[in-house]
Amino acid sequence: MGAPTESKKALTLAEISALVRGRVVGDEALTVVDVRPVDEASSEELGFLASRRYVRYVDDSRARALLVAADLEGQVGEGRSLVVVEDAHRALYELLRTLHPDAPAPADIHPTAVLGRGVELGEDVGIGPYAVLEDGVRVGSGTRIGAHVVIGRDAVVGQDCLLHPQVVLYPRTVVGHRAILHSGARIGVDGFGWAFVDGAPRKMPHVGRAILEDDVEVGANSTVDRGSIGDTVVGRSAKLDNLVHLAHNVRLGAMSLLAALVGIAGSTRVGRGVLMGGQAGVINHLEIGDGAQIAAAGKVMRDVPAGAVVSGYPARPNREYLRKEAHLERLPKLAERVKALESLVGNRGAAAPEE
Amino acid sequence: MGAPTESKKALTLAEISALVRGRVVGDEALTVVDVRPVDEASSEELGFLASRRYVRYVDDSRARALLVAADLEGQVGEGRSLVVVEDAHRALYELLRTLHPDAPAPADIHPTAVLGRGVELGEDVGIGPYAVLEDGVRVGSGTRIGAHVVIGRDAVVGQDCLLHPQVVLYPRTVVGHRAILHSGARIGVDGFGWAFVDGAPRKMPHVGRAILEDDVEVGANSTVDRGSIGDTVVGRSAKLDNLVHLAHNVRLGAMSLLAALVGIAGSTRVGRGVLMGGQAGVINHLEIGDGAQIAAAGKVMRDVPAGAVVSGYPARPNREYLRKEAHLERLPKLAERVKALESLVGNRGAAAPEE
Amino acid sequence: MGAPTESKKALTLAEISALVRGRVVGDEALTVVDVRPVDEASSEELGFLASRRYVRYVDDSRARALLVAADLEGQVGEGRSLVVVEDAHRALYELLRTLHPDAPAPADIHPTAVLGRGVELGEDVGIGPYAVLEDGVRVGSGTRIGAHVVIGRDAVVGQDCLLHPQVVLYPRTVVGHRAILHSGARIGVDGFGWAFVDGAPRKMPHVGRAILEDDVEVGANSTVDRGSIGDTVVGRSAKLDNLVHLAHNVRLGAMSLLAALVGIAGSTRVGRGVLMGGQAGVINHLEIGDGAQIAAAGKVMRDVPAGAVVSGYPARPNREYLRKEAHLERLPKLAERVKALESLVGNRGAAAPEE
Repeated sequence: MGAPTESKKALTLAEISALVRGRVVGDEALTVVDVRPVDEASSEELGFLASRRYVRYVDDSRARALLVAADLEGQVGEGRSLVVVEDAHRALYELLRTLHPDAPAPADIHPTAVLGRGVELGEDVGIGPYAVLEDGVRVGSGTRIGAHVVIGRDAVVGQDCLLHPQVVLYPRTVVGHRAILHSGARIGVDGFGWAFVDGAPRKMPHVGRAILEDDVEVGANSTVDRGSIGDTVVGRSAKLDNLVHLAHNVRLGAMSLLAALVGIAGSTRVGRGVLMGGQAGVINHLEIGDGAQIAAAGKVMRDVPAGAVVSGYPARPNREYLRKEAHLERLPKLAERVKALESLVGNRGAAAPEE
Repeated sequence: MGAPTESKKALTLAEISALVRGRVVGDEALTVVDVRPVDEASSEELGFLASRRYVRYVDDSRARALLVAADLEGQVGEGRSLVVVEDAHRALYELLRTLHPDAPAPADIHPTAVLGRGVELGEDVGIGPYAVLEDGVRVGSGTRIGAHVVIGRDAVVGQDCLLHPQVVLYPRTVVGHRAILHSGARIGVDGFGWAFVDGAPRKMPHVGRAILEDDVEVGANSTVDRGSIGDTVVGRSAKLDNLVHLAHNVRLGAMSLLAALVGIAGSTRVGRGVLMGGQAGVINHLEIGDGAQIAAAGKVMRDVPAGAVVSGYPARPNREYLRKEAHLERLPKLAERVKALESLVGNRGAAAPEE
Repeated sequence: MGAPTESKKALTLAEISALVRGRVVGDEALTVVDVRPVDEASSEELGFLASRRYVRYVDDSRARALLVAADLEGQVGEGRSLVVVEDAHRALYELLRTLHPDAPAPADIHPTAVLGRGVELGEDVGIGPYAVLEDGVRVGSGTRIGAHVVIGRDAVVGQDCLLHPQVVLYPRTVVGHRAILHSGARIGVDGFGWAFVDGAPRKMPHVGRAILEDDVEVGANSTVDRGSIGDTVVGRSAKLDNLVHLAHNVRLGAMSLLAALVGIAGSTRVGRGVLMGGQAGVINHLEIGDGAQIAAAGKVMRDVPAGAVVSGYPARPNREYLRKEAHLERLPKLAERVKALESLVGNRGAAAPEE
């Protein structure tokens, strides 16, 4: 399944520093065999320190060397060697790719795979046990399809994709190049649409498609509906975490990142580079502008302009939300102040006739 | 998998109008080959316009004809032919059924399907590759079972159902006629119940069943627990979107519609025709009356009477919710007003001894 | 799949009372064949009554005998025999285990199961149709693996586990003894982590593991991510309901119970015996102390001390939450009181120059 390998290399801090464009403080010749969080690293491993919250674990760490964000360098005591970097996550990314190169799954087609009529496979396609490709499916070269994947009739999958076990693509779904779909992702599901005939809900036919553009990643057990009429589109390099739901006819812009349990209702259009925290939700037929940010659990009930940062339920601009929360915090005190005023004014009110 | 076909027919506006009981304004002889959202339709397609929010796309639409809701007719400029209808979604439903008739999956039993002892199948049952029907399972005539579906021991599935790939029915689950279960739906799962023995949680045996009545649809990756003792029941024509959770012993009334990511906790009873927006939640042991509506993300913490419309967290009647939100909006101003009063009264208070 | 059997035994109330350490009021020789909720029980079944909300169903119940919590004994009228117990759920647990003993799945290895190189199986391991165990997988004795389960390379599963159909363990996942994993559970998924290179999100390699300690249960369609570096750990006897999400590097303490649709973001540490209601959420990098309780839909945005009970969005201590809600309830009245004060003081304010 293209899983990460276990690290076998030993690297010196000098080598690591060159790799991640960092700066060594201490012993350049010291070697480590892997990188781990500062509180879990052994003496053979590079401790990773990117967040202020983990500084407290440094003193007890067994790591003899740390990969540390520049703004935390001053908070690490003496006695350890450091590789100091500006962007710790970028550095981690480079380092892990070197220490744990991908072990690509073999490009075998398992004899139990069921291929329908007219299936077209590019070169070097791997298909796992019991996968089912229905009639007319096309798969680009270099793509790996895991065990028990089902690709419905006339669906198209691009090149160099990785479909983990038990992904289901409904018929006519389109997946671009280099997509990663995790186990249990369901793409192209009928949307939730009903016409009421004699008071009972009748299923609206769903004849549109779900289209994932290039470089999309979809988390485990996430669901993307097909369009009712027209298509649902997930833009290039957009990333969905686990258990995310995109309803029919949603359009999600390029490079947007949706954390787990996010739900976006029908026909909503989300711009480019939008970030949504876990459990955020957006109702239907809205427009979320480019670069907007929805905080975790933010419930969006109206359009969000480009670049806005919103939080809360209903979601509102973050400053407004924080001010509202502060006022809420002071509400008991406000009530007391009103009571005090009343007793002052009320006394006077009662006294008034005597004036 | 019973997927929609691609449209092949060409229909005149006169034919469409007769089909959807509409009224043509313009060229009755004009033909279209499909229907699409107004902003996506080509010149060969009928543009669909049911929402005020899409009026802005009309001017740039390539569609030469529109299917339009009567209340929007006045907002469409000259130069296009129209089919005007009272209920646009009902009309769309009729039109799509004609343009895209269902292509039923074949009634074959794939040779790789595993059928246990005593399995009983009605006529014209189709079973996909690698499906597993355990001992004692009964399936009604006309039902289609997708690839990798697992039906547990002694479960019963009615007639003319459609089980998409990778549905799992736990043992003794009961599914009525004409059900549609989407990929990854798990029906009859053990509920979340624990007895504490010596301080540790011990699994409460779950011996009840999950029962889906006729015409139920369950979305992708949704979960319906079996009862602990007694049954979990989903009423006739109830519809669950994707990633919905119904806990043990929930009773969901007929024709209720639950949008994605809704969760209903144990033993709660939901009436008929109840609507819940996405991410709504209901705690356990409540009663939700017939025809109630829970807004998206509404968190219901107490019983809801029949016909009530509730929103917010905790959910309260919608008017109360809106009033509360309006008051919250004005809270900063209220605080200022109290401060102003204090300075007025305080001055006087300070002045009082001098009076 | 190790499903509960149907009850065949008939027990007298005396026998039941001995079993559950209860006290019979009425006919000790009366026999019942099963236990059901008070409103669903037949005359042959013991009605179960543990909650005040169900007292209203007693009069119409067909049950001739009830299993009743001691604090409800006084609310049950004459004419029925009772088994009275202190802890009704504990009693139900004991009774169900006797009436419905587990029927273990057979320890067969289905001929269609695909076992990779170097797979090691303990004694009495059962493997269902079409299950796939990749190279190097180890499974402890007595474990049952359902149909279509996929266990990735080098993963380890302990003894006496039950993996329901269509569970997926990603490579190198570790599962302890006596785990129960429900259908669609995905363990060891890559986490949601990105490094930005030239403005585009690049997948952070995930080289840690997901580790489930002994006696863990994971609900249907729940997802547990592997660590990015370091491991994600679910503590002993922790229980996850359906559709729960644990992000990379979460550490969940022993005996913690998470209800459906809970999401916990990356690197958050949750203590022992923590309870979270349905749809609760916790942002990343937090610490939740031992024994804390998060109410249903509570959205936790900061650390929670041990033993605290929090609710709301953002979650705050329960008392504070209730006080805040009460103040919100009175906010319209508060606004009126301020208005009244203003008119009083304002009049005086207007009068002031005349003084």
